[in-house]
Amino acid sequence: MAEEPVPSYSPPSNAAPLGQYVIPIANKLQDIFAQLGSQSTIELPQVAVVGSQSSGKSSVLESLVGRDFLPRGSDICTRRPLVLQLLQTKRKDDGSEEEYGEFLHFPGKRFHDFSEIRKEIQKSAGLGIVEVLCIAELEASGSRAFGEAWCLENREAETEREAGGNKGVSDKQIRLKIFSPNVLDITLVDLPGITKVPVGDQPSDIEARIRTMIMSYIKLPSCLILAVTPANADLANSDALQIAGNADPDGYRTIGVITKLDIMDRGTDARNFLLGKVIPLRLGYVGIVNRSQEVTLQLQC
Amino acid sequence: MAEEPVPSYSPPSNAAPLGQYVIPIANKLQDIFAQLGSQSTIELPQVAVVGSQSSGKSSVLESLVGRDFLPRGSDICTRRPLVLQLLQTKRKDDGSEEEYGEFLHFPGKRFHDFSEIRKEIQKSAGLGIVEVLCIAELEASGSRAFGEAWCLENREAETEREAGGNKGVSDKQIRLKIFSPNVLDITLVDLPGITKVPVGDQPSDIEARIRTMIMSYIKLPSCLILAVTPANADLANSDALQIAGNADPDGYRTIGVITKLDIMDRGTDARNFLLGKVIPLRLGYVGIVNRSQEVTLQLQC
Repeated sequence: MAEEPVPSYSPPSNAAPLGQYVIPIANKLQDIFAQLGSQSTIELPQVAVVGSQSSGKSSVLESLVGRDFLPRGSDICTRRPLVLQLLQTKRKDDGSEEEYGEFLHFPGKRFHDFSEIRKEIQKSAGLGIVEVLCIAELEASGSRAFGEAWCLENREAETEREAGGNKGVSDKQIRLKIFSPNVLDITLVDLPGITKVPVGDQPSDIEARIRTMIMSYIKLPSCLILAVTPANADLANSDALQIAGNADPDGYRTIGVITKLDIMDRGTDARNFLLGKVIPLRLGYVGIVNRSQEVTLQLQC
Repeated sequence: MAEEPVPSYSPPSNAAPLGQYVIPIANKLQDIFAQLGSQSTIELPQVAVVGSQSSGKSSVLESLVGRDFLPRGSDICTRRPLVLQLLQTKRKDDGSEEEYGEFLHFPGKRFHDFSEIRKEIQKSAGLGIVEVLCIAELEASGSRAFGEAWCLENREAETEREAGGNKGVSDKQIRLKIFSPNVLDITLVDLPGITKVPVGDQPSDIEARIRTMIMSYIKLPSCLILAVTPANADLANSDALQIAGNADPDGYRTIGVITKLDIMDRGTDARNFLLGKVIPLRLGYVGIVNRSQEVTLQLQC
């Protein structure tokens, strides 16, 4: 594999000295491990967003970044884990900002237009389970260097995605870096939403697959869990709190996020949810209102 | 046990002759089996309503009966299976109607006021799992005739319910008959909603207990399943369709019911749900709008 330079960004001046040097190196090593398909990882703290499909996970993540770049829509969903490394850069001398994204599978290509990032994620996320198995075979056969094979197969799969309607879910990560002076150095993970009934050509064990994938992230003691539950459903039936409870039974690293506060049924409120009177959480709850689907669609068009 | 007369209602004149005579006898036998705690049952066709907690199951059932009598509220839920036998009676000669309910655990007492029925269900439903285990012990010890013990313990538990806030779920049925000239002879079953995270002093395996209870009803080939899913959540994440699919994989007896069509997010609609484009169902879907929580509370006060 060709040697890539360590990304040329300046660590923030107010960060702890150790973090300044360790985070970029650890990020770099993680990228290499991901490319090699290695099981070895360095467990840096990361924030994972979990919840049932359409609960508003991607919107929560986007709010944290402060930019629109994730595919969102009532029939669009996260199908592969998106590992998002936020890297703080310095403002230019003239005060202007440069914000851009870079995908691991498009090395060197800077996406300055965030709607292009969305399109790229949408294409990559369309990669169904079948294609991923094909890639795994290619890797195993060792017929080509993995980096090349991955990129090539990925693009082929993208084309297939545009043609077909595969709704498979894959545990192959999409890795995206966002360079910006407006972010903190942090790694966020957007995970596929929990579903229970296979849709399209999804395998019959889709729920188990998704749960296993989510657990592989949130079981790590260094992972902070944002458990997203919509306010218009019963908190006692929250898939997010259930899986977070399994991964973090003592609740030291789970934060509850209550979405859709604006579209609750008339005559109900989320007071008891937010005050922790229904399901108590050590770190408590945050209530948020994301954009409605209507506004989202208007902005994307 | 004292011999009770077969309920004195007139079978409808337009029903099939067989049904006229068989249904009341079968109903009577089922009541006896239920009182004896016997495993033997006669499987008459019945309609069971399943779904996650607060999805609107009780409201769906109430609409079928055409009367308000079920406890409903954002923090009130069905905690015991309610087996509801609807029995068509003749109109009186002067054209007036007599509609009343009768509980198996209150033999001979006619509830003409349907809000009293609601209160009685609410009290009985408060019976937590702990009390049910006590009753089971009493039964096993054979110290008293079951009928008496059940009624007595049940009333004691009701008092406890009024004092405490136990949110346990029990598989002990509440059996209610509604006699009315406006109903069809049919048995409906309102089942506790699926929840995942224990609330209050619920046992940690609450989800498994509820699922086992629901399955014991809907696995019967004579059971028609109303799978209730709110329109403001993702159909692919429907607990109702998942459990119905397990009980009835070929879909010969599952009808999808989409509730809360009126409080969907702006910019979304349930067209694809209702047309079966997301999860196809052999018997299709019905969309309904129940009363909002606000109106329900106003009417109950």
